[in-house]
Formats: sequence, C-alpha cells, structure tokens
Amino acid sequence: MNKNDVTDRAHRAKQAGLTLGAAGTAKKDRALQNMADRLMDQRTVIMEANAVDMDKARKQGVPAAFLDRLVITEKTIASMVDSIREVRALRDPVGEITRAWTRPNGLLVGRMRIPLGVILMIYEARPNVTADASALCIKSGNAVILKGGSEAIHSNRAIAGVLSDALKGADLPSEAIQLIDTPDKDVLYEFLKQDELIDLVIPRGGEGLIRAVAEHSRIPVLKHYKGICHIFVDADADLSMADSVCFNAKVQRPGVCNAMETLLVHKDSAAEFLPGMIDRYTKAGVEIRGCERTQKIVPGIQPASEQDWFTEYLDLILSVRVVDSIDQAIEHINKYGSHHTDSIITKNVEHSMRFFREVDSSTVLVNASTRFSDGFQLGLGAEIGISTSKLHAFGPMGLEELTAQKFVIMGNGQIRE
Amino acid sequence: MNKNDVTDRAHRAKQAGLTLGAAGTAKKDRALQNMADRLMDQRTVIMEANAVDMDKARKQGVPAAFLDRLVITEKTIASMVDSIREVRALRDPVGEITRAWTRPNGLLVGRMRIPLGVILMIYEARPNVTADASALCIKSGNAVILKGGSEAIHSNRAIAGVLSDALKGADLPSEAIQLIDTPDKDVLYEFLKQDELIDLVIPRGGEGLIRAVAEHSRIPVLKHYKGICHIFVDADADLSMADSVCFNAKVQRPGVCNAMETLLVHKDSAAEFLPGMIDRYTKAGVEIRGCERTQKIVPGIQPASEQDWFTEYLDLILSVRVVDSIDQAIEHINKYGSHHTDSIITKNVEHSMRFFREVDSSTVLVNASTRFSDGFQLGLGAEIGISTSKLHAFGPMGLEELTAQKFVIMGNGQIRE
Repeated sequence: MNKNDVTDRAHRAKQAGLTLGAAGTAKKDRALQNMADRLMDQRTVIMEANAVDMDKARKQGVPAAFLDRLVITEKTIASMVDSIREVRALRDPVGEITRAWTRPNGLLVGRMRIPLGVILMIYEARPNVTADASALCIKSGNAVILKGGSEAIHSNRAIAGVLSDALKGADLPSEAIQLIDTPDKDVLYEFLKQDELIDLVIPRGGEGLIRAVAEHSRIPVLKHYKGICHIFVDADADLSMADSVCFNAKVQRPGVCNAMETLLVHKDSAAEFLPGMIDRYTKAGVEIRGCERTQKIVPGIQPASEQDWFTEYLDLILSVRVVDSIDQAIEHINKYGSHHTDSIITKNVEHSMRFFREVDSSTVLVNASTRFSDGFQLGLGAEIGISTSKLHAFGPMGLEELTAQKFVIMGNGQIRE
Repeated sequence: MNKNDVTDRAHRAKQAGLTLGAAGTAKKDRALQNMADRLMDQRTVIMEANAVDMDKARKQGVPAAFLDRLVITEKTIASMVDSIREVRALRDPVGEITRAWTRPNGLLVGRMRIPLGVILMIYEARPNVTADASALCIKSGNAVILKGGSEAIHSNRAIAGVLSDALKGADLPSEAIQLIDTPDKDVLYEFLKQDELIDLVIPRGGEGLIRAVAEHSRIPVLKHYKGICHIFVDADADLSMADSVCFNAKVQRPGVCNAMETLLVHKDSAAEFLPGMIDRYTKAGVEIRGCERTQKIVPGIQPASEQDWFTEYLDLILSVRVVDSIDQAIEHINKYGSHHTDSIITKNVEHSMRFFREVDSSTVLVNASTRFSDGFQLGLGAEIGISTSKLHAFGPMGLEELTAQKFVIMGNGQIRE
C-alpha cells in the first residue's frame, strides 16, 4: 500500500461515513443484525483463519497467556455475536437534540448529535475487538478503519471481511468497515497523517503502542497511558467498608487499569486500619511497599521508593502511604496519579465534595471501589476506550463519545441588523 | 527563553490551573472584578505602551486597516472592561452536574463539569483578545498562556501584566495568566510540544497562522481554517424571504467567516429568483460569478470556475450555482464547503430535516442568515473561537467548551463481584 492508496482508502471511508451518518436507526440496526448473523454463519471460516495465526504464534513460542488472548473458539464467536446484538439494542445517539432554546429574535437553536465521521481503531492481540469496535462505530454512524495486531492478521481479515460484507445486505457501503491488513508500520503512520479524512484515533494496548501512535498522529488521539489508581482512607472512614473496598480494588482483578495501585491512609486511621488490612493483603499474596510511617505501624514490610508512587504494577503489589490530611492525599494523587480513577472512603460530606472537585481525575468515587470505572459498570452500555486527557471525552467512553454536536437552527427569515 | 524555561512556564501554568480549578465562583468573580478595575485604572500606561507599537507599525508603513486593529483608545479600554464584566456576569460552568443516574447496585453516577486546565491562545493583531480570552479562561477555571501578534507586543505586555497582577488581589496565582512576549517562533513551537502540561490550543487569525500552529502542535488544536458558507434556495422557498436572507448573508459584513460565499438555487426557483436577486447584489457592488445556467438566466455575468466553489472571498464577491435538487445542493456543500455554516430557505419540512441531518457542517440553519453563526448570537454569552472539526467542540465555542466532564460517583461501600 503506498501513500496514494492510503489517501484513497481514507477518502472512501469518509464517503462511507457520510452515507452511514445520514442513514436512519432502522438501517443501521438491520446492518448490525446482518453482521451478527453472518459472523455466526461464517464461524468455521473464521476459526480456520484463526488456526493459521495460532500455528504461527505457537511456532514463535509466545507465552500461553498470549495464545489465550488470540484463540477463537465457538464460545468466542458466540460472545462476539452477543456483543453485536447488545450494541444493536442500545439507543441510537445520532439525531438526539440534547438541548434547545429560543433566542429573543425567535430563532430556535438546538444541539444535535451527529457521528464523528471516521474512526481509526488500533489494538493488539484480541481479535474480538474487531467485532466489538465495528459494532459500536456502525451503531453511532461512523465508518471505522481497523488495525489489529499483526499476530492476529488472518483472524482479523476473516472477521472484518464478513462484517464489511454484511453491511451491503442493509444497503450500506461495505467500505464503512475497513481493515489495514499489512503489518507495515509505515502504512499505519501514513494513515495517521490523514487528518482531513479521519476524525479520531483510538489506540488500545500497552503504553509502548499508545505512545508510538500519539507520536506519529496528526489526528486527535483518545487514550490513556496507564491507570495509577488510588484509594484514600480518611480520618473518619468506616474502616470495615474501607477494608472491603480496598481489598476489592487491589485483589479482584489486579491486571487491569482500574485496579488500585496506591493506598493512602490518614494518619488518624492508620494505626487502627493498616495492621488488619495489610495482614489480609499479605494472606492474599499481595506484596506491600510502605512509606516510613507504614513500616513503623506494620514492621517488616518493604520500603516504597519514590519510583513506586509513579508505578502501575498491574500485579499483586501495592504501595501504601500514611498522609497527614486530605490536602496531602489530593496533592499526592494529582502529583503521582494518571488522571484515571481515584476513590475516597469517608463519612465526611465536605471531604467528599472536596475530593470530587480537587482530584484531577476522569473518574472520582466516594465510598466505592475503583473497579467501577468501566463503561458497562457505569451504565454507558458499552465501552470503546478510556480517555485520561480532557479534550472531547474524559473517562470511560461509550456510544455518545463517538458523536459530536452540531448547531441546528430554525428561523422564519431572521437576518442580522 | 530556552527549552527548560518553556517547560518551567508551562509547569507553573498547570499548577496555577489546578488552584484556579478548585477555586469557587466567588473567588473567580472577584478576580474578574479586579481585572476590570485595574485595566481601567492603568489605561494611561496601556495606551502609552500601545503608542510604541503604533509608532513602530507606522514606520513599517502597514496599511491603515492594520493600524485600526492595533490602536488602543479610551474607547477600546472601556470596551475591554465591559467585556470582562459581561463574562463575570455569565453562569460559572464549573461544578455543574450535567446529568446523573443511579445504577442497579445503588451507585449514583454523575457527570461534573471541570476546567480543561491550561489553554494556549494564539492570535494576531487585535490586543483586545488579550483581555477577552483571559476573562473567559479565568471564569471557566483555566490558566491561559497568551501569544499575540509581535506587532502588538508592547500593548499585550502591558495588558497581560495588569490582568495577571489583578489575580493576586483575589488570592489567585498570577501565573494563571501568562504572556509569551518574544516573537521567536521557536519558543512558540516549543510551547506547542508541551502536550502533558497544556490541554488545548486555540489559534485565531489567518489560514497561514492556523496551519502553522496545527502543523507544529502536539497538543489538540481547535480551529477553523475558513468559512465557505452556502445558502440553498429550495424549489418551494418563500422567495421574498430568500431575497432578504441572501442579501443579509452576503452584504451585511462580507469580510467575516460566517458571510455567504456561494448561493445555490433550485432549478425551479432560479428563473423567478435570480434576476431580481442578482440585480440587487449588483447595485450593492457585489461581483457575481455564475455557473452556466446562471449565466443563461442573467446574461452578461462572469463565469464561475471550479476554483470559485472552493474559495472564501471575504469580500463583495459571490459564486452562484443552479442545482437540480436538494441532493445536489447537499452534495455540493459537503464537497466544496468548509463544515462551517450553511442555510436552506424552504417551506418543505422534509427538506429542512434532511438539510439538518445531511449537511456536514457545524452550524446548519433553516430560513435564517448564516451570519447568526456566532457565540453571542446563538446565546452562548461569549465566543472564544469556532471549531470546524468535530472533536470536543463543533461550531462556535463559549465557556462550556472550555470545560470537560468527569465522572463523579457516590457509593456506600460497593465492590465488584
């Protein structure tokens, strides 16, 4: 694929996006129905393609966890199909008038949700993202250009082929779902320059991938590099609630971005709270790295270094710091955190309000586990990614975050004086 | 200013932004009051600084229109002061909960408006932007870094100095308003790399300036390159309304981005509408460039070239095309337009709905002049710029567009199963 091919493909995505943006909900839902049905029909073909990727990966001796993410079984197909049907059942955000008001001269001014246009989705191993992301983009009226991991190239080619073809059955352009099916990085970088044709880039994967995308992109990128999530146990916290929430946030699934990485404890709660909490963690296999005061309260634990406060372990490791006040807790979070998700355990209303206002993160909780920072858990119905920068979207992104709002204005001949 | 100085200044802006973001409305309004008062007090100093810029500009033999934009009189000061007071009177968007809902597990999930953080504002000659942009940023809790035209450097230094100093009187950090007071382009480009410290860039000025900013920026840029605005006079338009609106959109102020540049007329209206309309334009000094059918209906007018449809004249020139249908009109607008502002004159409800849905522009009007595409006219209370790309904001941007929304979540001990 050379430079002209890339521009040409992006052009055709743009055109397909315009058609899709003007299509009503019924047509888009018919396409989604078709996508689900065809995926089920073609499952053998898809699994055969996946077998080629699996063979190649096995020969390269990749770790078992990697194969686990790559494999497509009957169950994987069923789950992709279900997820397309769930997206189909969501409310169509396009065309919604979110607000409207009348001006003194009689102009009726409204804001109408419209698709963004073309989304470039970049991701790593799991081929199910190919189906999930396509469904969310089609539902929200956007064309999508998919770039999956090169290890899954045969699987992604098969899935994207089926989905793209399924659009025709609903009289929608197949080019609304396209796959970049070369591992050539220069081709991807060329796509990342098409800022007049592609509206948004969403990379999902490791920090290395995301940084490379951000560096090469002329198109806006919605992303989060990492999730260094905190819980602050306040002076007047319900300590039994704190114990339950802090355990859940660290242990329930430590390898994800909304798991807690640093526990902050108010000095007045520390002596009562920490010994039991750390004992429970230790029994669950969590390695604790503590500040000096933590080490005094619970002797024998490892010291935390300055670097620990900046670290996303994604593992059963937790750094613990005793702080003097809510001010110090907020300062710590804003300095070392990643603007992702932070929680306070407190009975103090003023402190909960201050935490909401002053913690500079996309999701801020009072008396609940950081693990709720997730599109499904928060009731968005879906999640296409999480953004920790503030432009356009901040936090988990659902269908609405794949739309913009235009001004629509009804008049009866108004002119400006 | 070297690279470290730039990072250091951006760091201090970020810190000031955090303080400002946590400050309540009362404190910010006190700061705005102070800014207005001090500007009035220091008007002599500011006019003296402006005289230095004026002298220099005159010696360089710049055009009179340029001097007109550069000059600061008692009246200019009064107007800057008024505009700060108007911004002060607007509703503070920060802290607003725009929506909230309860999840089945009892979590109360809300979306709260917060400031973006640090705004880098880049603009050309008019020094009043220094005051206007500062007021909007402070009201919305954002720190601002200002980069005005080098021709206005003494004026901007004086205004920004007064405003920045005025913040201290409200116990807010003076570094929330900073000026880049060197014309060195490399310094600006260095600021444009600070994507971890600066949240948004808004360039205002000619297309050349804006393209240079977009090219060098690692930070998201909200911008519009140009406004190629259309009016489509439909088959069943009220032709007297069409005459009034089309005249207003072209003639009332031709040099601005929301003035009409291309008139599209349905073939069934053309013979009745165009002769009178073009006669009225010609009498007002508007040069007409028409398609072949236009030339047949009104003999003797200049032909329009393909390039004309792509051109923002910003002058008393208008291109005119007769089209077969609303489909062709929409196709023309989406192909040649600039996603800025377009209007249809029609009595047909279905056509007005189609125009709203299918015209890919930030502001779409039915039966009203394109000249209403303006933050004040639409009731936003202010305007910091206009965006013709869809990420974050689309169309005129007011105070709300200087905010993001975080998730704020109230629980009572919820954990994930």
